[in-house]
This record gives sequence, structure tokens and C-alpha cells, in this order.
Amino acid sequence: MEGRRLEAFSDGVFAVAITLLVFNLAVPGPGHEPLGAQLASHWPAFAAYVVSFLTIGIIWVNHHALFQGFSRVDRVLLFLNLLLLFFIVSIPFATTTLASYLKDGGPDAALAAAIYEAVFLGMSLAFGALFWWSIRREHLKMPLTGTQARVALIRFAGGNVVYAAAIGVAFLSAPASLLISALLAVYYMFDHTPAQEPEADGGRQP
Amino acid sequence: MEGRRLEAFSDGVFAVAITLLVFNLAVPGPGHEPLGAQLASHWPAFAAYVVSFLTIGIIWVNHHALFQGFSRVDRVLLFLNLLLLFFIVSIPFATTTLASYLKDGGPDAALAAAIYEAVFLGMSLAFGALFWWSIRREHLKMPLTGTQARVALIRFAGGNVVYAAAIGVAFLSAPASLLISALLAVYYMFDHTPAQEPEADGGRQP
Amino acid sequence: MEGRRLEAFSDGVFAVAITLLVFNLAVPGPGHEPLGAQLASHWPAFAAYVVSFLTIGIIWVNHHALFQGFSRVDRVLLFLNLLLLFFIVSIPFATTTLASYLKDGGPDAALAAAIYEAVFLGMSLAFGALFWWSIRREHLKMPLTGTQARVALIRFAGGNVVYAAAIGVAFLSAPASLLISALLAVYYMFDHTPAQEPEADGGRQP
Amino acid sequence: MEGRRLEAFSDGVFAVAITLLVFNLAVPGPGHEPLGAQLASHWPAFAAYVVSFLTIGIIWVNHHALFQGFSRVDRVLLFLNLLLLFFIVSIPFATTTLASYLKDGGPDAALAAAIYEAVFLGMSLAFGALFWWSIRREHLKMPLTGTQARVALIRFAGGNVVYAAAIGVAFLSAPASLLISALLAVYYMFDHTPAQEPEADGGRQP
Repeated sequence: MEGRRLEAFSDGVFAVAITLLVFNLAVPGPGHEPLGAQLASHWPAFAAYVVSFLTIGIIWVNHHALFQGFSRVDRVLLFLNLLLLFFIVSIPFATTTLASYLKDGGPDAALAAAIYEAVFLGMSLAFGALFWWSIRREHLKMPLTGTQARVALIRFAGGNVVYAAAIGVAFLSAPASLLISALLAVYYMFDHTPAQEPEADGGRQP
Repeated sequence: MEGRRLEAFSDGVFAVAITLLVFNLAVPGPGHEPLGAQLASHWPAFAAYVVSFLTIGIIWVNHHALFQGFSRVDRVLLFLNLLLLFFIVSIPFATTTLASYLKDGGPDAALAAAIYEAVFLGMSLAFGALFWWSIRREHLKMPLTGTQARVALIRFAGGNVVYAAAIGVAFLSAPASLLISALLAVYYMFDHTPAQEPEADGGRQP
Repeated sequence: MEGRRLEAFSDGVFAVAITLLVFNLAVPGPGHEPLGAQLASHWPAFAAYVVSFLTIGIIWVNHHALFQGFSRVDRVLLFLNLLLLFFIVSIPFATTTLASYLKDGGPDAALAAAIYEAVFLGMSLAFGALFWWSIRREHLKMPLTGTQARVALIRFAGGNVVYAAAIGVAFLSAPASLLISALLAVYYMFDHTPAQEPEADGGRQP
Repeated sequence: MEGRRLEAFSDGVFAVAITLLVFNLAVPGPGHEPLGAQLASHWPAFAAYVVSFLTIGIIWVNHHALFQGFSRVDRVLLFLNLLLLFFIVSIPFATTTLASYLKDGGPDAALAAAIYEAVFLGMSLAFGALFWWSIRREHLKMPLTGTQARVALIRFAGGNVVYAAAIGVAFLSAPASLLISALLAVYYMFDHTPAQEPEADGGRQP
């Protein structure tokens, strides 16, 4: 039960951050254009909402899978987890900013998209650090083989490279960089690290 | 304990979403009409608040009942659950939009009501998918008999048909469509699926 | 573990509602009066914040104590609990409205204070119903003696009478009615029902 | 399991309060200065966000460590914990106010910084009271030796003296007082009380 409260606090932060994304959707309301036109011109908010929701949801699934394999939690892990939560909490801000500027194009849209991808990169680096610390200090109930660990770390590195590339792409096209993070989220839905296997199979097989 | 964190994260999202509904109630405050008149003209916000609160509350009760019967959780269930939460998180937005437009009548009120009912339909379809996946892949501790499963799936289909009908009704009368979702919530309070039986009886009978 | 998720969901709602009270405190900020003057003229927000925080905190303590004694949870309890949460979620709205109008005096302040006390009365009635249902249907691990149950019900009735009286007082003086609910909260801090005894003693004595 | 719900409710409040800090970051958006200039002139919000996030995160880590050592929870502890949460819930307000005024300098910035540090002092005093009550009434599973308890209480007193000094410094320089609380947070990251030892080592050594 070592990690129970770390999980409870993290679940709370994930749950609040993912739900606060909804404020992003608010339209101006009566007294402006027809509602249909408001919603149509508000598409960047809906697109950014879906990508951010999916990204937080997936990082939660992975967090769940990683901590399920933990046998103990030390102070360094608590603070690496806090670093991860720092980026999670920043996502609603980055989402709102991107949604406000996406249609404008120009340098402001590029900057907003670069910040959005940078927050995801920070989140991804913090998650990789959690994973790396967990295998290095043998916090896992079932240690990974050298090959499993290498495969997992290569995958984390791959995700980080894609987010870093998306920061660069932001300065060419903000919508393209949003699309990259959407595709990465979908990829992570269908692929997962060896550390996550036990969870995916229910961890109950003999 | 497989589903413990899925439940904790879901409970967090349900709790935040149901509590954020309160922002809907805020009145303009001093410097406008008398408070009584503000509250009276604000009735759509209170009506939509009650219906959304009850609907989220009931879906939580059903979620609680469904997962109590689960013996294991797989990756598909995690993502079906995330889909359900996507619609739950969208409810405060749909509620605010409906409350803003309900009194205006006209095509904007119809569109707002249709979105409101569409979010409920999405929620209901995602819940049905969770249930269907759970009986198909034998995640339940006590498998349902064929008859029980059929009865439950017919009931889910019934709810979906009513929400779909409410989308249509929205274009005739927005208040009527809100009333339909209120009545459906009340119906679900008093009726419940076989899968929920063990929970309702405390699951302790010999 | 029957009531675990009911507790988790309720704790989430209590936690979000008590934390949302903070939005009440926001002052206009730079470009207006000096900050000290803004804070001074903002005293109703601080007063209402403290009373609402304490009231939600105490009802949480009592909820915690009541459910600790439960041996099982039925569907009626789930919905009585949902009714309690309905009033909890409404408290931030009632608090903001009271804080906005308290200084104005006149009929608007009276109405705002009456709504505030009515929400507390609803909360108190819902809590009493939870308690009454729990002893009537023998959900408690250690049934109360007839005397204990009578004492507890008299105390609940007493709280309800005071809140009902505060609604009346609101129409004479809004600040006086706020003071009554503050005093009732302080009274409940120092007094507690027999059902809460096991919790207060840690429930570990032989 | 005595303290389970106290922890769950506290975790919820910590999680919501730390996540609400994000509202502090919102920039005016399109139609104003270029986004880069908006973000640059918004630095006090980012600085205050980081310090508040870290402070709430560390007090959570310490809360986690303290309660892990508890063998039982009494009513006084519940209310001391509620006092701690009162200050935690106030942090987003104090953070927003400080961020709004920090750049203005003058008496308003001083007052905003003094309030910010006073909320941290209140939080620190409430945490110290929780600790003091826990060792005095023997709530800990492993009682501290007299020396350990003295060392821990001296450290708490030290933190309180620094926060009190930061209130004074606020009237000389608001940024300097923010820096002091940042340094104190970093210091607390690397140092911790004897009561926290079992948690830091995973509590699994023989």
C-alpha cells in the first residue's frame, strides 16, 4: 500500500486537470452570432480539447500501469511525480492559449503551439524520468529484463523526439503541430511498454 | 483491487464535473435587477442544473454498480471508460450552453438542446459499450445469464433511443427535450439492471 | 468495503466544493482602490467564506463518522447521499450570492441570506434523512440503543430548527442570520452524536 | 484504516487547490499585445505559480509522511487538519493577489506579499500543531524519542520564523519575500523530519 496516497493525490490532480479543460469550450453566448456560427468558429477549442483530453487520459493510463508494478516509493519518486503533475496542471493553460491563437496564424499562433508542445514534452520527460528511476533503483515488483528496459526507454526517447519535433513544426504551422500530438496520442493508445503488460492482462494469470 | 485506481480517477472526474455545474448558477449580482427577479429569470440555469446533477449522479451510481461486479480490467475497458468520462466532462459545457439559450427559443435554443441531449446520448452509448464489453469478455465475477444480459442490453438500447428521440424533439421544443431527459433520469433512479442487483442488496446476502 | 466508492465520490465532491469557495475571495485587483481598502470592503466575502468552509468541513467530519459505522449501503442510501451532495454543491453559489449582497442591506440582502440558510437547512435535512434511514434499516455495525437514537434525532431536529429560524432572521438582519449559522457550526465542532463516538475514540479500544 | 478518509478528503483538497493555481496563468489573449510580450509581462504569475505549486506539493509530501506514521485519528486531529486545509484552500487566492500586484511595487505589492507569506505561515503553524498533537497524544505507530521530537519541533519553529520574517521583508521588497518562500520550499525538498523516515525508506525494512 506504499504508493496508495501518491496514486490518490495524482488521480485527483489528473481528474481536476482533465475536467478543467471544459472551461475551454465556453462560447460567447446569446447576443452574439448565431450559436451554430459561434461553435463553428470555435473549432480550435474543440480540437485542442480533444487532444488534451486524450493526452491526459493516456498519461493517466500509463501512470496507472507504471505504479501498479511498483513495490515501493521513495522521496525522489515523490518529487519526480510532482514534476510530472506540474506539467499536467499546466495543460489547461497551454490548451486555452493554443485554442485562442490557433486560427490567427502568424507568430502568436506559432508561439502558442510551441508552448503547448513544450508542456507535453516536459510531461513526457518527467514520465520517462519516473520510469528510469523506477527501473534503476529496483522499485518494480518484477524487474524488467535488459531488453525490455531498453525497448521501453527507446520508446520514451521516441515520444520525446516527436514532441521536440512538434515544437519546431509549430513555427511552420500551428495546426500541423497540434495534429502531430493528436497522432502521437492515438499511437500511444494502441502501443504500450512491457512494464504495462501485467496491468493490461489483469495481472491475474498464474 | 484491479479496478481501484480506475474507480478513483473516475470518481474524481465525476465529482469535479458534478461540482463545476454550480458555476452555471451565478447571477449577475448587485447593480442589476432585484435579486428575486434575477433568480426568476434565471430559471433555465436551475432547471438544467438539476437535470445535469441528477444525470451525472445516476450514471455514477450505475458506474459504481457495474464496476463492483468486475473481476478484472483490461486496456480496452480503460479506454471505453475514458470515452465515458469524455462525455461526463462535456456536461458542464452543454449545461451552460443550454441554460443560456433555453428561454430565447428559436434555432439557437434548439441547437443548444440538441447538443445537450447528444452529450447524454454519447454518455449512454459509452456506458452501454462498457457493459457490453464486460459481459462479452467475461470480466464479471458472476456472469449474467443469457436472459439477464438480453434484458439489460434492451434497457440500454431503450435509454439510447429516448436520448436520440430527445435530440429530435429539441428542434420542436427545447424545454420539452430537457423534460424528457429529466424524466429518463427519474426512471433510472427507480429501475436498474440485473448487473446492479448485488450492489443494491449490499452483496452480503448468503 | 461496500461504502468505499460512495465515500470516495463524496470526498471528491466535498473537496471540490470546499476549494471552489476560494473564488469568492477574489478582489477587483490593480486599477481600483488601494488593495487594503478593497480587502476591507470585501469583508462579507471573507466572513461567508469562513462560515461556509467550517460548515462543509463539519458536515464532512460527520459524514465520515456516520459512514464509518455502516455495515452496508443500499440504493436508497446512495440517493439520499446524492441529495446531501446536491446541497453541498450548491453552497459555493449561495456563498457568493450572500457575499455580494450582504452589505447592501434591504430586501436583496435578506433574500440572499435566506437562500444561504435554506441551502444549509436542505443539507441538514438530507443528513438527518441519511442518519434516520441508517438506524431504521439497521445499516449500522453497532445498532444504537433507543435512547441514543432519540438523543441523536433530537439533536438533528434542533439543528434544523435553528437553520429554519435563521431563514426567518434573514428577513430582519442578513448579518445576524450569518452569525447564527457561524455559531451553529462552532456548536457542532464541540458536540457530536453517539453514532460518532466510535470514530472519535479511534474505534480501537477493546 | 482509521485515517483513510481523512487522507482521501485531504488529497482531494490538495489536488484541487494545486490545480486551481493554473487559472493564475491565463493571459489576456488575442486583441492585445503580441503573445510573447503578454507572457513576458506576466512573469509574476509564473513565478508565484511555481512557488505555490512547490509549497503545496511539499506540504502534501509531508502530510503523507506524517499520516503514514499515525496509528489513530481523533476529533481534535480532524479539526487541526481542517485548519491546515483552510490555509491550503486560501493559497490560490493569495497567489493570484500577489501575482496581480507584484510588479506595481508600492504599498499594495507589500500588502499582497505579506498576505501571501501570512497564508504560508498559517499553513506551517497548522502543520506544526498537527505534528505536536500527534506526538503528545501518542498517535504515532513508532513513538519518537525525546531528541527526535525536539529536533523536529525546532525545525518546525525554524520554518515558522522564516515565514514570519518573510512577512516583514514583504514591506521592504515583495519580490525578496517571494524569493524567501521559494528558497524555503527548496530547503524542505532536501530536508525532512525523523517522523518521515519510515516513509522515505518505503517502510518495508525488517
